[in-house]
Amino acid sequence: MKVEGRHYRTIWVAEDGWTVEVIDQTKLPHVFEVLPLKTCEDAARAIETMVVRGAPLIGATAAYGMALALREDASDDGLERAHQRLLRTRPTAVNLRWALDEMMAALRNRTREERPAAAYARAAEICDEDVEICAAIGRNGLAIFEEIAARKPGERLNVLTHCNAGWLATVDWGTATAPVYMAHDKGLDVHVWVDETRPRNQGAALTAWELGNHGVPHTVIPDNTGGHLMQHGLVDLVITGTDRTTGSGDVANKIGTYLKALAARDNGVPFYVALPSPTIDFTLDDGVTEIPIEQRGGEEVSQMTGRTEDGRIETVSIVAEGSPVANYAFDVTPARLVTGLITEAGVAEASKDGLARLFPGRAKGS
Amino acid sequence: MKVEGRHYRTIWVAEDGWTVEVIDQTKLPHVFEVLPLKTCEDAARAIETMVVRGAPLIGATAAYGMALALREDASDDGLERAHQRLLRTRPTAVNLRWALDEMMAALRNRTREERPAAAYARAAEICDEDVEICAAIGRNGLAIFEEIAARKPGERLNVLTHCNAGWLATVDWGTATAPVYMAHDKGLDVHVWVDETRPRNQGAALTAWELGNHGVPHTVIPDNTGGHLMQHGLVDLVITGTDRTTGSGDVANKIGTYLKALAARDNGVPFYVALPSPTIDFTLDDGVTEIPIEQRGGEEVSQMTGRTEDGRIETVSIVAEGSPVANYAFDVTPARLVTGLITEAGVAEASKDGLARLFPGRAKGS
Repeated sequence: MKVEGRHYRTIWVAEDGWTVEVIDQTKLPHVFEVLPLKTCEDAARAIETMVVRGAPLIGATAAYGMALALREDASDDGLERAHQRLLRTRPTAVNLRWALDEMMAALRNRTREERPAAAYARAAEICDEDVEICAAIGRNGLAIFEEIAARKPGERLNVLTHCNAGWLATVDWGTATAPVYMAHDKGLDVHVWVDETRPRNQGAALTAWELGNHGVPHTVIPDNTGGHLMQHGLVDLVITGTDRTTGSGDVANKIGTYLKALAARDNGVPFYVALPSPTIDFTLDDGVTEIPIEQRGGEEVSQMTGRTEDGRIETVSIVAEGSPVANYAFDVTPARLVTGLITEAGVAEASKDGLARLFPGRAKGS
Repeated sequence: MKVEGRHYRTIWVAEDGWTVEVIDQTKLPHVFEVLPLKTCEDAARAIETMVVRGAPLIGATAAYGMALALREDASDDGLERAHQRLLRTRPTAVNLRWALDEMMAALRNRTREERPAAAYARAAEICDEDVEICAAIGRNGLAIFEEIAARKPGERLNVLTHCNAGWLATVDWGTATAPVYMAHDKGLDVHVWVDETRPRNQGAALTAWELGNHGVPHTVIPDNTGGHLMQHGLVDLVITGTDRTTGSGDVANKIGTYLKALAARDNGVPFYVALPSPTIDFTLDDGVTEIPIEQRGGEEVSQMTGRTEDGRIETVSIVAEGSPVANYAFDVTPARLVTGLITEAGVAEASKDGLARLFPGRAKGS
């Protein structure tokens, strides 16, 4: 999407034909900086230090990390070492393992001479495939946006989102944001309420930055606000991303998503979740009891980083000294609160039957 | 309640017998500082600059402001001037007007000579009355806490609260916190989940500070967290304060309260609201449509103040530059989501009938 009027992806090959460039997301929203990755180690560190984040972008960066490694050492040993190094960066990221497996499959049986070019080609394909998945989610979501907008002609369509399921987490378009960008680009009058998304503030920092740079009207709100807005008819639909969806349609996403789903249900507001279908885990039935919820460091809650009036980046403590904090990263929204799952293959009802209809053959026991 | 092992109220007369002292709440939780008020103007400024906040404490400070004024000029003119000055400090605070009216009634027909002593005496009474109201709320709430605790003998009672309805907002005890302190002081194993309460962070700053200083076990959580905790049986009851309650039992309170009430209902967790009965507005029926919701400055959302590692107090911007923000201060929780209203007179069902039973004669049309 656009930054200062120019189209960007989150990862690309530089003009020299081999350096990989990414947006340094640790500096957003305060500074927009492009970081060159010249070695496999650069790519690994970019993943580890969250210069890049979001499952699809992590996968894409790892794929290019393999390509960078093979430029220096295209032997079987070099291939194996790069795979191991990159896999260690974020051990629980399913997408990371998938992208690395794809690369290994594409490279293992090639000659040393063929490997570097084949690696760049497969990495580029992985990126393009991700863009196509997100674009398809966007098209499927756009149809829903247009249907809801048609019920209030001439009026602004108000969308609420939580966290960042934006293009910064993918290669382009994003998941939850894809229909937003498509609606905006098509001339629909769409406005986004952006939950700030404590404690890491991905909404206020990343989603707001994205939308602002692409020119989409939006307003940042504290996470506490959505219910009030819905009570007063100021939200037409909610759309979020998800980290993991069960075969029954339960949705794990950033902590607080469940509260918005409850408010949506209480006020008759549609609540949609956008996702690439590979993130559906058909082996899981009950999200609340079966999906383990990561607890992260307390400093994400007790400290806040921002820019001072004179432009310095400072970190301040905001919690009473000595008070313990807890930091649960995700919660699970039960399928009963989800209006629909927007995937690249179409929109599924959030239920075992709904998912089985859209993905015959993938459901448990089928 | 206790600060560093010593019992404090939020306002008191110093050892010299006439200087009024308050806790400077603008410096909490970073610095505990007592501020002397020596003139009516000192008291007025303390209210205006939010050195003191919370309806009961504002009323008490205004009452002592009258006493300080009369030490200098006990004439009818002096009385009138002090009344006018103090009334201007927070024009919409109902409790402020009530306290000043009480003072005028107690002083108007006194001689100049009698007025200063009478003013100190009535101000002290206003404080004592507030302490007694909060203590009565505490006793009534404690009975509920004990009943719920009795269902899980030997286990910790987990209470969730939002914002600061603590002793810092009153003269002592607080409203929502009164049963917590009483339960703790009585030896009940009570633990409080403290919502940080964005955007002003009254939970992380004030409630956590209060509870920590009194020695009550507690954990600060982002506002997004409560739903997840309730889904996993980690909350036994929710208790909050309220700024305004309708005759039908709808409750206006800090933005985000409604989301917690929804989560409590969805998980079968009791949701209580603690309040002094004078804050019930029997002229209102439908809180969502009838209670106007204040919108406050965007900088409360976009900026955050805290202490740096080396002890400086800094303010940083945390929202993407140029992104608009919205800051709704309160929301309304419909009575259907409220388990009970804990008042100094007893616990009422949150309904027109429930309130009419507890307060016969006050209900509309009665």
